[in-house]
Amino acid sequence: MGIAWTEDKGVIAAIDRVEPVPSRRRARRRGRKLSGAKHRPNSQAPFAQPILQRRAIGCYQLCSEAELNHLEQQADWLLENVGMEFSADPQALELFLEAGATVKDDRVTFNAGLARELCATAPGAFTLHSRHPKHSIKLGEDNIVFMPGYGSPFVTDLKQGRRYASIDDFHNFVKLTYTTPYLHHSGGTIVEPMDVPVNKRHLDMVFAHLTLSDKPFMGAVTSIAGAKDSLDMAKIVFGESYLETHAVMQANININSPFVFDGVMSGSLREYAKAGQCVCVSPAIFGGAMGPVSPAAIAAQTLAEAMCGIALTQLVNPGCPVVMGSFHSTMNLRSGSLTFGTPEANLVTMALSQLGHRLGVPVRSGGGQVTAANSADGQAMADSTNAMWATALSGAHQVWHAAGWLEGGLTMSYEKFILDLDNCGAMLRMMQGMQVNEETLTQQSYFEAGPGENFLTTSHTMSHYADANYESLLPDTGPFERWSEEGSEDASVRAARVWQEQLANYQPPALDKTVKQQLEDYVALRKSELADAWY
Amino acid sequence: MGIAWTEDKGVIAAIDRVEPVPSRRRARRRGRKLSGAKHRPNSQAPFAQPILQRRAIGCYQLCSEAELNHLEQQADWLLENVGMEFSADPQALELFLEAGATVKDDRVTFNAGLARELCATAPGAFTLHSRHPKHSIKLGEDNIVFMPGYGSPFVTDLKQGRRYASIDDFHNFVKLTYTTPYLHHSGGTIVEPMDVPVNKRHLDMVFAHLTLSDKPFMGAVTSIAGAKDSLDMAKIVFGESYLETHAVMQANININSPFVFDGVMSGSLREYAKAGQCVCVSPAIFGGAMGPVSPAAIAAQTLAEAMCGIALTQLVNPGCPVVMGSFHSTMNLRSGSLTFGTPEANLVTMALSQLGHRLGVPVRSGGGQVTAANSADGQAMADSTNAMWATALSGAHQVWHAAGWLEGGLTMSYEKFILDLDNCGAMLRMMQGMQVNEETLTQQSYFEAGPGENFLTTSHTMSHYADANYESLLPDTGPFERWSEEGSEDASVRAARVWQEQLANYQPPALDKTVKQQLEDYVALRKSELADAWY
Repeated sequence: MGIAWTEDKGVIAAIDRVEPVPSRRRARRRGRKLSGAKHRPNSQAPFAQPILQRRAIGCYQLCSEAELNHLEQQADWLLENVGMEFSADPQALELFLEAGATVKDDRVTFNAGLARELCATAPGAFTLHSRHPKHSIKLGEDNIVFMPGYGSPFVTDLKQGRRYASIDDFHNFVKLTYTTPYLHHSGGTIVEPMDVPVNKRHLDMVFAHLTLSDKPFMGAVTSIAGAKDSLDMAKIVFGESYLETHAVMQANININSPFVFDGVMSGSLREYAKAGQCVCVSPAIFGGAMGPVSPAAIAAQTLAEAMCGIALTQLVNPGCPVVMGSFHSTMNLRSGSLTFGTPEANLVTMALSQLGHRLGVPVRSGGGQVTAANSADGQAMADSTNAMWATALSGAHQVWHAAGWLEGGLTMSYEKFILDLDNCGAMLRMMQGMQVNEETLTQQSYFEAGPGENFLTTSHTMSHYADANYESLLPDTGPFERWSEEGSEDASVRAARVWQEQLANYQPPALDKTVKQQLEDYVALRKSELADAWY
Repeated sequence: MGIAWTEDKGVIAAIDRVEPVPSRRRARRRGRKLSGAKHRPNSQAPFAQPILQRRAIGCYQLCSEAELNHLEQQADWLLENVGMEFSADPQALELFLEAGATVKDDRVTFNAGLARELCATAPGAFTLHSRHPKHSIKLGEDNIVFMPGYGSPFVTDLKQGRRYASIDDFHNFVKLTYTTPYLHHSGGTIVEPMDVPVNKRHLDMVFAHLTLSDKPFMGAVTSIAGAKDSLDMAKIVFGESYLETHAVMQANININSPFVFDGVMSGSLREYAKAGQCVCVSPAIFGGAMGPVSPAAIAAQTLAEAMCGIALTQLVNPGCPVVMGSFHSTMNLRSGSLTFGTPEANLVTMALSQLGHRLGVPVRSGGGQVTAANSADGQAMADSTNAMWATALSGAHQVWHAAGWLEGGLTMSYEKFILDLDNCGAMLRMMQGMQVNEETLTQQSYFEAGPGENFLTTSHTMSHYADANYESLLPDTGPFERWSEEGSEDASVRAARVWQEQLANYQPPALDKTVKQQLEDYVALRKSELADAWY
C-alpha cells in the first residue's frame, strides 16, 4: 500500500512508525528478505569507515572580485602604515630588513605588495606525513582536515562535572581523536594537562600524540626549548633525515593582534620553519577588542597579520609549508562577553577562505565548532553548526576546534566532543556532494514502485539502504513515548554513552618498542634536567 | 593596555572578563564615557527592529549546469513515463486533457517539456499583501520569507510538558509569530487545535490569523468547504474586489508522493487558484519510502511532481501566483525512523533551489529548522541549523517550519520556537552580507589604536557598538561560575523566559470593529451549520 503523508493533521506519525520490512507481496516476488533491517547501535558504525577528506562540492564565494581587491588593498595599507611589532626578536627584524622591509625600533612596515611577494614561495598544497600512510593528510587544494579543540584548561563530562584538565584527560582526547574517522589530525594542546608542570607539559603531550595516535599532530610553541623538544621527539619516531624532507608536524603560531608578534611565538615559528615543518600563522582578533567591529576590517587585518607571519617563515626557509590561519570572533559589545558562531564571525570566516585561496596557501578556518555556551545545549550546537557551515562551504582547508569546545574554549566537553564529531561526519558526507547519474536517478525503481506505492523494497533501496545516508553517531531516540519512558535522554546523555564506548574500545596504533623506549628516555631525561615550573 | 591572547594556556579567560569600559586615558582624552555599556536584557532587543527580508549575498550553486539539465531530463522522463494520478478530480483531468496531456483513467502523463511549458505563465515574483503595508511580503527574486512550523498535533513547554495542542496554543503561536521581526508570515496550521472539532478548526485558525496578526497567512486545504470559508473570511477583511487583484493568502497543497494528487488537495488547489490566491505545491518525499534513496532522484521527482501541480494552477488561472514547494527528508533505513537536517536532505534542498530558479517561480525550501529530536537539545539545534543553512544559502524564497519543530513535526515546542527565532535572526543578519567600504574598513581606527592596543574605545567602536553585531534573543549566560551559581540554565530554560515575556508584551494589531464583528458572525454562522466532526 502507498503512504499518505501531508503536513496537515500530523499524519507524519504514521510514517514515523513504518518499519522497513518488505510488503509480503514484494518479498514473495523477490524470494528474499531485507537483511540487516534490525536496529544496529549507531555508535559502532563509524569505526570501520575510511577517513573522508576531499571535497567534491564548490566553494561559496561570499565576496565579489572587487570586494576582495578592496580587502587586499586594506591589508597592504595596514602593513605599510601600521606594520608589525616584533617584541624581542632581533633575528626576525634582521630578516625583514634584508628582505627590503622598513624596520624602526621593533616595528616592521612593508611597501604595498612586498609582504605578498615574500609569501610567494609558500606551497599551495603539501602533505603532513603520518607514520601510517593511511593517516597522512594533504593540506590545500580540495582537501579538508578536521581537528579537535585546542587549549582548554578545563574539561567537563556529565558524570564528573567541570574540573581542571589532567594528563589523563589529554590522553582520552588523543584516543577519541585517533578512533574517529571524522577528525584527521591529532591536534596539539587539546586540553592543558594542569597536573603536569607548565615547563614539562609539552613532553607528555607530544609523547601522547606520538604513541597513542599516528595522526599528524602539533608541537609546542609556548617556549623555544619546547619547540626544540617537539622536533627532537618527532625525529626519534620518523628519523632525522626524514624530517628534513617531510613535514610530519605543525605549529600553531598565534599573533597577539593587533600587530604584535610575541618573541616566543616568532622564535618558535623560526624553529619549526628552519626544520621544514608546517607553521600555521593565526592572528587572534575579537572584533571591537583586537580590531575594529566590522567584519570587513577584521578580514583585512587578519590577512595583513597572517601575511607578515607567513613572510617570516619563507625568509627563514623558502618553500616551508605554511597555513594561513585565523582566529576571530565577535563580542557582545554591551556586556563584553565573547560570542561565537555569530553571523558576523561567519562572514569573516567565509571571506578569509577566499583571501587565502588568492594568496595561494592552505587556509585554517577561523570557525570550527565554537560556542560561548556553558553546556552542550541547543545554543552550543546552533553556534557550532553555524560556524561549521561557514567553514565547510567557503573552502577552508583545516579546521581547528572542530570538536569539544565550550565556554569560548575554556572547557573541553566529552559530550560536546561527540556531538561535534557527529556533525563533522555529516559535513564530510555533504561535501561529497550529490551524484547525478543513471544509477542515482534509478529510472528502474519507478517501474517497481508506481504512483502511491512505496520504495522501501525496490531493488535500488535494497542495494543502498545501508550506505545511502550518513548515519548519526548518536543512538536513535525512537518515538517520544519510548524515549520518555526510558528517561527522556537528551543528546548529551546519549553522547556520554558514545565516548565511553569509544574509549573502552580504543586500541593503540603499532609502534616499535625500541622507538617507544627512546621516546620515554628522552622525556625522562628532559624532565630530570628541568626544575618544575608551575606558571 | 593591550590584550594578550593566544589559543594556548587558556588566556582566553582574560578577555572573557573584560568589560567594555574605556581606559581612563582614552576616556579623558575624549571627555565622555561609553554610554549604554550596562547589560540590557537581550530578549527586548528585537521588537523594535524592522523586518529584514532581502538577501544581499549570492546563492550557492551546488549542481553544475550539466547536472541540472540531467535532473530536469529525469523530471521530464518521470512525467512522461510515470505521470500523476488525480484521484477523484475529473475537472483536473479535463483541464490536462485540453492542454494536450495524455489522460488514461486517473493518470495524466506529459510529453517531454509540456509540463514546463504549462508552468510558463506563473509569475517569477509577486507580493502577498497584508492589511498593514509594512507586513506585505514579496515572494521571489532576492527575498526570503520565514514562517513558523506547520501541522503539529502536540505542543510542549518546559513547565507543562508535552500535550495535545489546543486553540489557546494556536493563539499563542500566532502572537509569538506576529511579535518577532524574524518571521515574516503568520503560517497556517501552526499547531492543530485538537480541542476544536476537525471540521471547524479552520474557522478558528483563520479568524486568529486575521485578528491576532496582520502578517500574510495560509488558508485551509483539508476540505474544499474549508478553502471556501478561508477565502470568504479574507474577503470580509480585505474586500471582495481587492482579492480579485491581490494575493493576500496562501495554500499549502501537499502531493501524496509518489505521484498521487488527492482529490481534496487538487480541489482546494483549484479553489485558491480560481481566486487568484497563492498556491504552494509541495511534494512530500522521504527518500526510500515515497521515492528512491538517492538525493538526485528525490530532487528530480520533487521537480516533476511540483511542475504538475503548478501546471494545474496555471490551467485554472494563468498567472496565478505559485510557489514550487517541497517537503523531503531522509530515513534511517535500518530502523525506519525519519531523520531531518541530514546531509542528504540538505543536498536536495540546495539542488531544488537551483531547479526552482530555472523554472522561474519562487521556491519553498524543503528545509526549515527541522529535526527528529524529542527535546530542544543539542541534536535538535544541530539538525535545525544544518537544514537552515542549506535553505538560506541556496536561495530559497520561502521557509515553512522555520521555528518550533520537534519530533519530525509531531510537536511544536515553545522553547524550540525561541531558539529557532534566534537562529532566523542570525541568518537574516548573515544574508545582509559583509559590507566592504571605507566606513567598514575604518583606517582611522588604526591611528587611534596601535599595535598591542585595544579598539574598545576607538570612535568607530563607540559609534557602532550597539548595532555592529546581531544580538541573540537568549539572555547572556555570563561566565561559568555565575551561570553555575544561578542554576546552570541551559538554552531552553533561558528560552522559556523569552517566550513568556514575549507573550506578556503582546499587543494585537488594529482592526476595524465592524470587520471583526463580521468575522465573528461568519464563524458563528458556519459553526452553527455544521455538526461537530472529530475525525
